[in-house]
Amino acid sequence: MKVNGKPYRSIWLNSDKTRVDIIDQTRLPHEFVVHTLASLDDAAEAIRTMRVRGAPLIGATAAYGVALAMASDPGDSNLRQALESLLETRPTAVNLRWALDQMATALEPLPGSGRREAAYALAAGICDEDVAINRQIGGNGLALIEDLWRQSTSDTFHILTHCNAGWLATVDWGTALAPIYRAWDAGVPVHVWVDETRPRNQGASLTAWELASHGVPHDVVVDNAGGHLMQHGLVDMCIVGTDRTAASGDVCNKIGTYLKALAAADNGVPFYVALPGPTVDWSVSDGVAEIPIEERDPGEITYIEGLLDTGDCGRVQITPPGVSARNFAFDVTPARLVTGLITERGVCSASHQGLLSLYPENK
Amino acid sequence: MKVNGKPYRSIWLNSDKTRVDIIDQTRLPHEFVVHTLASLDDAAEAIRTMRVRGAPLIGATAAYGVALAMASDPGDSNLRQALESLLETRPTAVNLRWALDQMATALEPLPGSGRREAAYALAAGICDEDVAINRQIGGNGLALIEDLWRQSTSDTFHILTHCNAGWLATVDWGTALAPIYRAWDAGVPVHVWVDETRPRNQGASLTAWELASHGVPHDVVVDNAGGHLMQHGLVDMCIVGTDRTAASGDVCNKIGTYLKALAAADNGVPFYVALPGPTVDWSVSDGVAEIPIEERDPGEITYIEGLLDTGDCGRVQITPPGVSARNFAFDVTPARLVTGLITERGVCSASHQGLLSLYPENK
Repeated sequence: MKVNGKPYRSIWLNSDKTRVDIIDQTRLPHEFVVHTLASLDDAAEAIRTMRVRGAPLIGATAAYGVALAMASDPGDSNLRQALESLLETRPTAVNLRWALDQMATALEPLPGSGRREAAYALAAGICDEDVAINRQIGGNGLALIEDLWRQSTSDTFHILTHCNAGWLATVDWGTALAPIYRAWDAGVPVHVWVDETRPRNQGASLTAWELASHGVPHDVVVDNAGGHLMQHGLVDMCIVGTDRTAASGDVCNKIGTYLKALAAADNGVPFYVALPGPTVDWSVSDGVAEIPIEERDPGEITYIEGLLDTGDCGRVQITPPGVSARNFAFDVTPARLVTGLITERGVCSASHQGLLSLYPENK
Repeated sequence: MKVNGKPYRSIWLNSDKTRVDIIDQTRLPHEFVVHTLASLDDAAEAIRTMRVRGAPLIGATAAYGVALAMASDPGDSNLRQALESLLETRPTAVNLRWALDQMATALEPLPGSGRREAAYALAAGICDEDVAINRQIGGNGLALIEDLWRQSTSDTFHILTHCNAGWLATVDWGTALAPIYRAWDAGVPVHVWVDETRPRNQGASLTAWELASHGVPHDVVVDNAGGHLMQHGLVDMCIVGTDRTAASGDVCNKIGTYLKALAAADNGVPFYVALPGPTVDWSVSDGVAEIPIEERDPGEITYIEGLLDTGDCGRVQITPPGVSARNFAFDVTPARLVTGLITERGVCSASHQGLLSLYPENK
C-alpha cells in the first residue's frame, strides 16, 4: 500500500539483491523508518523485538532470515542453526514454523552451491503468495462492499474495523483491510471507523497510520463507541480479521470483537470476518468452549505507551499504585453473529457447511 | 467510604466550622490530597478545574460556596454575585442549578444577619440528603445482591461496573457502587470487574482507587473484556450508573454501557442501573432517538493522561500525528436490555409502568 504516495510492501529485497528492507514497526505510528537486515541475526532480532509483527510477516521475515544465512554460509550446520535460532524468536507463531518448514524441505536436499539462490527465490515466493491471497480476499470483499454500496442512499460508505489486520501485519494488503483498500482504490467513498483496540492500541496506532498513509478517510474512536455508532446508522458494515477460526465458523480475534458483533446483530449491520483459509482450525467445533484465551501482562493495561510531549516515546501509568488488572487478549465471536467469512476462495456463511463449500478438501 | 481505614465523605465542614474540606480529585488516583476551600472563589475554582466532579458533589460544593460567601459578607449584592459566579462554573450541570436555586429561595428572604447560619445548615442538609438517597439505593441493591448470592454456588460474587458512579461522584456511597459497598460491608464476598472506561479512564483511576481504599477486591479490565468474561460465567451481575433515564426506562450513561448490556443479555447476566429518582427525565420516551449525545474534544482519545516514570503527571500521544478522532461521550441502552432500575424508593422494571409504580406523582 502507499506511504506518502509511494507503494510499499512491509518487507522487500534491498536493491543490492542480498540485504532485506523492512519498515521498523516499533517506530510507528510516530516515525516511518526503513530498517535494513544484513544478517540472520538482524532478522532474528527484528522478529524478537517486534520490528516486524503479524503472523504472515513474521513467516516472510524468517524465510528471508534463512536466505541471509545462506548468503553468508550455505553449509549444513549453518542452515540447521539458522532454522533453530529463527524458530526460537516467537515460539507460538504458527506461520513462523510453517515458513521455516518450507525452507528446510526445499533447501536441505540441495548442495550448498544452490542454496543461496534457492533460498531467496523461496522467500520471495512466500511473500508473493501472501500478497496474492490477501489481494484475492480484497477482491472478494470488494464485491460485497460494492453490492452494499449500490443499495445505500448515503454519500459515504462507513466501515468499522477492530485492531490491525492490515498490510503491516502481512506482506501487503492485509486481511480485513484488503477489501477496504480495494474499495477505496475502486472509487467507493469509504470512511473507516477505527477502534483504538485497547490495551495495545493497534487500531489507534497502526490501522490509523496505514489508512492515513494510503489516503483512506477514517476516524479513530474508543472501543466503547461502536454500539452508539451502529444505533445511529453510522456503520454500513463491519470487517475484522481473525487469529483462529473454528470449523463451525466461530471466530477468535482481538478482545472486544464479540461486543461489536453483538451490536452489529442488534442493529442489522452486516458483520464480516476476513481470513486466509489456512487460519481455519478444522479440529475445533465450539470456539467459545475450546479455544484457550491467552492472558497477557497486566502492565499492558495499567501503563500506556506513546509519544511524550518531549518527542520521545514513553509511558504513563493510568491506575492507582498496586492495582490489580487482568489482561485477556482475545475473545470468541459465535458464528451466529457473523454474517459471512471473506476468504481467498470466496465468501461463505460462518458455518461448517459454508467453510466446506470453499475448502472441500477438509471433508 | 473508607480511605486507609478512616471514613470519609467527598466534602465536609472543616473543624473551624467555616472552611470546607474536599478531596482534590485532580490528584487521584496517584495522590490523596485534602484541599481546603476558604472562600467563594476557592469553591468556584474547585468546581471549574474539576477538583470536585460528579453532579451531586458539584451541587453540594456550590451550596457550600454560597455559605462561604455569606460568611464573608451576607449582603444582597454579594449573595447575588455568589449565585451568578457559581452557576457559571459548569453551565450544563443540572444539580448545580438545582442546589443554587435551593440556596437562593431560602436565603433571599432572610435578613443578612441570619444568612450565614442558614446557608451552612442548608448546605449540610443538601449533603445529608444526597448521602441518605445513596444509602437507600445501596440498601435496595444489597437486597438484590443477597438474593442472587444465595442462588450462587460460587465462592465469589462477581459484579461488573462501568465508569465511576461511586462516592467520589456524590457526597458518599455513590449510586452504582453503593450496593457494592453495602454488600461488602454485609459480608458478601464481592469481587468487582472494573471497566477502565476510555477515553477518560474513570474506571481505571477513580473506581479502582475507591474500591482499593475501602478494601473491596477488584480487577481493572479493558472495556473490550466484559463480553469474554460474561461468556465464561465470570460475571454474576452488572451494575452501572446513569446520567439521564428516559420515562420509558432507556438509560443514557457513559459510552460503552450499551455494549455491556448487550453482552449481559446474550449471556443471561442480570444488568441493573442504579439511579436517584430525580435523574429520570419524564419528558423523554425514546432514549435512543431523543437524548442528544455530547461529542467531546478528540484530544481525550489521542492523548492519554497519567503518571510519568518521573513521578510527575503527564500525557502520551497514542495516534499518528494529525489523525482524526471522534469522541462520543455517552450512549443509550434500550430498556429491553435492562433487568431493573435500583432507586432510593426500591427496585422496578425498566419501563414507564415500573417507574410510575415508584414515582406515582409523575402520572
